Amino acid sequence: MKNPLLFSIVLVVAVGLLLAAAPTSPPALPQYTTDNQLLRPENYREWVFLSAGLGMSYSPKIGGHEMFTNVFVPQWAYAEFQKSGKWPNKSIFVVEERDSQTKGSINKVGHFQTDFMGMGVEVKDKSHFPEEWAYFSFGEDTRSAKAHPKEGCFACHEAHAAVEHSFVQFYPTLKPVAKKFGTYNAERENVDGAK
Amino acid sequence: MKNPLLFSIVLVVAVGLLLAAAPTSPPALPQYTTDNQLLRPENYREWVFLSAGLGMSYSPKIGGHEMFTNVFVPQWAYAEFQKSGKWPNKSIFVVEERDSQTKGSINKVGHFQTDFMGMGVEVKDKSHFPEEWAYFSFGEDTRSAKAHPKEGCFACHEAHAAVEHSFVQFYPTLKPVAKKFGTYNAERENVDGAK
Repeated sequence: MKNPLLFSIVLVVAVGLLLAAAPTSPPALPQYTTDNQLLRPENYREWVFLSAGLGMSYSPKIGGHEMFTNVFVPQWAYAEFQKSGKWPNKSIFVVEERDSQTKGSINKVGHFQTDFMGMGVEVKDKSHFPEEWAYFSFGEDTRSAKAHPKEGCFACHEAHAAVEHSFVQFYPTLKPVAKKFGTYNAERENVDGAK
Repeated sequence: MKNPLLFSIVLVVAVGLLLAAAPTSPPALPQYTTDNQLLRPENYREWVFLSAGLGMSYSPKIGGHEMFTNVFVPQWAYAEFQKSGKWPNKSIFVVEERDSQTKGSINKVGHFQTDFMGMGVEVKDKSHFPEEWAYFSFGEDTRSAKAHPKEGCFACHEAHAAVEHSFVQFYPTLKPVAKKFGTYNAERENVDGAK
């Protein structure tokens, strides 16, 4: 290669290609069908885990089998929350439901997680939803889902979540972050405030 | 800059520096004091979550308050497991214990997670431990910890874990991976096999 400028360009392009081939995923953002249905989030098990619950319910009725709920948020949104105590636009949350089991292998009491049972998804996306926040449910084979009516999840998150529409009162590692940035509504911890 | 070769080198170095400045963390590896105590793992809450349990116990006695256990592994070790069904040398596992609460905010039944209560750590590190696997406990303020005697955690993991020393029978997303690679010991799922 006799042309040094060409040589420079080839080198830079080669380094660029090496970079592009590096195993880094693009940031996880909500993706939609043309009729505004949310596409099923992929790879959420590799996102940041916020917390897990077992059999959590806002209704005093105790009934049926208890399920675990695991909450995940993408790394980029988690990093923004760490810097501001706020969720950036395009944040996406997955609440994965898993069945629970007590007796199995060497376990004798308590509960461990087993099969996937479903998944709830929350997005903050003002370019797609006038109220910014929207809620979706996915079964095992659901590829895309319409937003639930505002009377459901939206109304409860609006009324009871401690940081914007996010139940940070149940995410022990995020609570001190939100408190530091003054975005935590401590009144939402009160049981009496519940509907 | 009249020398085209120098120009090429400067360009490549500049791109390299940009890369080096990217906000990627070094891979999480076990770190030790000079007397082979494990240093407390940092940032494990940003690792990959494997599963959570509540009040899991290998003893039939039911007693006291139930705690959640959250299991995390670094991204690099998780990626290796996805490719082979085996844990690479220098793998590190954190089992974080969190207190549980039922009544709080709008929650009325079931359990959600609250305060940090302690942390167990398992490492696979043949350069530091002749049996490869070693086990440690950390309280809230523990900065470093000695490996537990082999009669404790080691013996139980050796006898009952489904993949090497790892209780993959309790990690529902890893089970199919290990089965695919033939590294899953399904007999370890049997209750009768328990001590």
